[in-house]
Amino acid sequence: MGIADFAINIGESHKQVVPITIFVAVLCFCLVIGHLLGESRWFNESITALLIGCLTGTVILLISKWKSSQLLRFDEELFFIYLLPPIIFNAGFQVKKKQFFHNFFTIMLFGVVGVFISSSIITAGSWLLFPKFGFTGLTARDYLGIGTIFSSTDTVCTLQVLHQEETPLLYSLVFGEGVVNDATSVVLFNAIQKIDVNRIDGWTAVHIFVDFLYLFSTSTALGVAAGLFTAYILKGLYFGRHSTVREIALTVLMAYLSYMLAELLGLSGILTVFFSGIFMSHYAWHNVTESSRITTRHVFATMSFIAETFIFLYVGMDALDIEKWKMSKLSVGNSIGVYGSVVLLVMLGRAAFVFPLSVLSNCMSRNATRSSSITFKHQIIIWWAGLMRGAVSIALAFKQFTHYGVSLDPVNATMVTTTIIVVLFSTIVFGFLTKPLVNYLLPHSDTSNIDREPSISKEDMKLPLLSFEESAETNLLRAKDGLSMLIDRPVCTIHSFWRRFDDAHMRPIFGGPLSNPSP
Amino acid sequence: MGIADFAINIGESHKQVVPITIFVAVLCFCLVIGHLLGESRWFNESITALLIGCLTGTVILLISKWKSSQLLRFDEELFFIYLLPPIIFNAGFQVKKKQFFHNFFTIMLFGVVGVFISSSIITAGSWLLFPKFGFTGLTARDYLGIGTIFSSTDTVCTLQVLHQEETPLLYSLVFGEGVVNDATSVVLFNAIQKIDVNRIDGWTAVHIFVDFLYLFSTSTALGVAAGLFTAYILKGLYFGRHSTVREIALTVLMAYLSYMLAELLGLSGILTVFFSGIFMSHYAWHNVTESSRITTRHVFATMSFIAETFIFLYVGMDALDIEKWKMSKLSVGNSIGVYGSVVLLVMLGRAAFVFPLSVLSNCMSRNATRSSSITFKHQIIIWWAGLMRGAVSIALAFKQFTHYGVSLDPVNATMVTTTIIVVLFSTIVFGFLTKPLVNYLLPHSDTSNIDREPSISKEDMKLPLLSFEESAETNLLRAKDGLSMLIDRPVCTIHSFWRRFDDAHMRPIFGGPLSNPSP
Repeated sequence: MGIADFAINIGESHKQVVPITIFVAVLCFCLVIGHLLGESRWFNESITALLIGCLTGTVILLISKWKSSQLLRFDEELFFIYLLPPIIFNAGFQVKKKQFFHNFFTIMLFGVVGVFISSSIITAGSWLLFPKFGFTGLTARDYLGIGTIFSSTDTVCTLQVLHQEETPLLYSLVFGEGVVNDATSVVLFNAIQKIDVNRIDGWTAVHIFVDFLYLFSTSTALGVAAGLFTAYILKGLYFGRHSTVREIALTVLMAYLSYMLAELLGLSGILTVFFSGIFMSHYAWHNVTESSRITTRHVFATMSFIAETFIFLYVGMDALDIEKWKMSKLSVGNSIGVYGSVVLLVMLGRAAFVFPLSVLSNCMSRNATRSSSITFKHQIIIWWAGLMRGAVSIALAFKQFTHYGVSLDPVNATMVTTTIIVVLFSTIVFGFLTKPLVNYLLPHSDTSNIDREPSISKEDMKLPLLSFEESAETNLLRAKDGLSMLIDRPVCTIHSFWRRFDDAHMRPIFGGPLSNPSP
Repeated sequence: MGIADFAINIGESHKQVVPITIFVAVLCFCLVIGHLLGESRWFNESITALLIGCLTGTVILLISKWKSSQLLRFDEELFFIYLLPPIIFNAGFQVKKKQFFHNFFTIMLFGVVGVFISSSIITAGSWLLFPKFGFTGLTARDYLGIGTIFSSTDTVCTLQVLHQEETPLLYSLVFGEGVVNDATSVVLFNAIQKIDVNRIDGWTAVHIFVDFLYLFSTSTALGVAAGLFTAYILKGLYFGRHSTVREIALTVLMAYLSYMLAELLGLSGILTVFFSGIFMSHYAWHNVTESSRITTRHVFATMSFIAETFIFLYVGMDALDIEKWKMSKLSVGNSIGVYGSVVLLVMLGRAAFVFPLSVLSNCMSRNATRSSSITFKHQIIIWWAGLMRGAVSIALAFKQFTHYGVSLDPVNATMVTTTIIVVLFSTIVFGFLTKPLVNYLLPHSDTSNIDREPSISKEDMKLPLLSFEESAETNLLRAKDGLSMLIDRPVCTIHSFWRRFDDAHMRPIFGGPLSNPSP
């Protein structure tokens, strides 16, 4: 009995056991290799996982005698139901709230307006360029979908190289844009699914935008409500009689529930779970025992880490699925043309918003200190950080172009393979170049000492959600200046109002230490 | 559009989202209610979850207009692949190793020999009694299966009432027997599946026993190997450059991998994961950062807690699946006769080994201090603690009598409903009576202050795996007495040998503090 027969025999008697065992084993292998390569100048987590995924795919392909490289079909439900929520929740839970809300306006410019600009350019560009390479048959909805699919970025790679302490503004912008961008592209993608493509006119863009705003605001509201509700339960029920296990279980389950509830109601689970993460770390986290705090912080980081590694492994394996490649009817030259034009459009679409919006952001904060203006070098890094395409692109492409992971016709198969190639190319090639580029542009940063520990400083947790670096008194005085002030520096004024509101009304109900016990 | 139509409409557009959302919501509800009822004299986790499960089942039954009470079909793969591993691993990880190995001999008597006695009695009894209630059609393999299915106990309920500090011996015996019993019944069940029922003779029992011994020893060896390997990786790789997230991820994944590998190789995953838990907490746990230690301890407890609650909810919902009830052809009177005879056989089968084996254990340790002998009151509590039937029984019954959760004929359907009824009855009725009974028999224990925190004391972690209360010197002297000693008090002698071996060879390689730095 050959190895192949043996593998098939086992496969039939334990349908689920074999793929899970191999996946878990490869994940462990990834962890160890990723740790060993952690010091390397060129590698990072994503690249390691992708390459190991490709390797595993090749081995499976050889064992199964060129039949299949897949252990499990790529299932976008698996991705959206199990893998994405922990990643996004962790982003919200670990985000440096002070920095995030300080740069809220700029982050929203990049994350929301940027996606609209980028996806318009990619949609228009692909509509113009694809037919030149003999690639036709896509519908208007497909082109709109392509715009969103290739506008979702993956900033994990760059974040591993940047240092929160050395360049706080840059780190905050890249991190914040990454999360908001994920949410925006998924919400925009869903908004596009709803429109009637037979009647595209001037109102269509307005419709999309209104749908988008509705989804954005309701999802955020649900996330905030879920976070506050959890904080309230933890404060009310467990006060004085703590049970670490229950506290952790409740936090995890409520976070997941908020995501699923949003999906069930047709909202954006990503936004909901992001904001529930922010509010849970701001309020609920203070109502639990010290052990629960340490545990939740690390559990969310670990779950997010495993989910990310899993996704890249998966994409690496899926890249070798020969059925998709066989089904695509384009010649090699034309295929390369399509891939190249998408990569170019991605770079162009991103440049078209990063540089203008950075200038706009600098103008808006002209009164602020010099440290909050975005230098040209920073603009280049922000542009570069968003060139990588990742799991969200793959998942959206599968949603648009396959039926439960199976491409039904050559056109759809070509789009799926194009997405995989663009993700592989951008992650590996752009990813390889990120460390050298950042070292060249920011020569002072010392990249040898990368510490990926989730670090929520005690101080950060104690500061109010929208705190500001200046003292509360200064803010208070400034707030009295009234309307002229509100126009001049709207964000700061909102900060000070929020800070007082948080101390006076929110923290007493939902938990958290008071920053000014007697104002 | 009525609620039912709405539910169906949603159900069709989001096949997986709806059941998961409802399940998570019900789980959260369970957590809160369970906490509120924690002080109660009558309720406990299992009963609360079962009753809420029944309630949810009823609501779903009403909404779906008597079509179905199930959100998901009970799938024994789900149970064995996802829910059981965390529960058993946590048992191994949190077990008081000192107590466990001190009472190893007695625990094995109850957990292994006891299951053999109990399942023989239940098999013989059901073979005699079932036809009297007009219930025929079961094969020899079915009867053997019934013996194992109803020999697997669920001691969670009793453990919540007992106090480790007040009655350490009793707690250790009940806890240890619970885990070993789970493993033994699953291993025995699998051994029975392999035998040729057409040729049952005197050798069959021998075959089963040899199969059982083989599975038991290889599974244990694999678990020990997995635990040591993890400890070695953590010690070798991460030394001096700790990464909490990776450490936690690796521990969780390696634990899971050991379980899946055992299942893949046809061994008993339960035993493997139990021993890998023991060895991980003994060695690997010492090689990680303080944050990782706190996190892993609570994560495993939380996962186990969620899995347990999930199972009881599930069983509660499944109890209302009307299709199974419709399919069973027995009259109400005969059905009650079958249920009653199973409950009686369970009580009889357990009594038949608890009391004789306790006496045997007391005789064996006649030289030991009075504290290690099992009093008659303790024997009653041990007997009672094992009367509850739980998730393992249900899962084994589904494996034996259904095809992917669907019963194909009236006989099998009757056996599935019988199992559900016995589990519900024993958990609810016997469970309700446990607290009063324990309070009556052990009047000094104060049950009002139940603390379910997983408590691994620092001291316990530092003690060697098979430490003994007496000093090492005494053991050393005694060890020299040689063979006569080995016969008289074999366990103590093995303890002292192991302790020296652990300090000299194991801990330097796999990690952990030395109890005698310079012996």
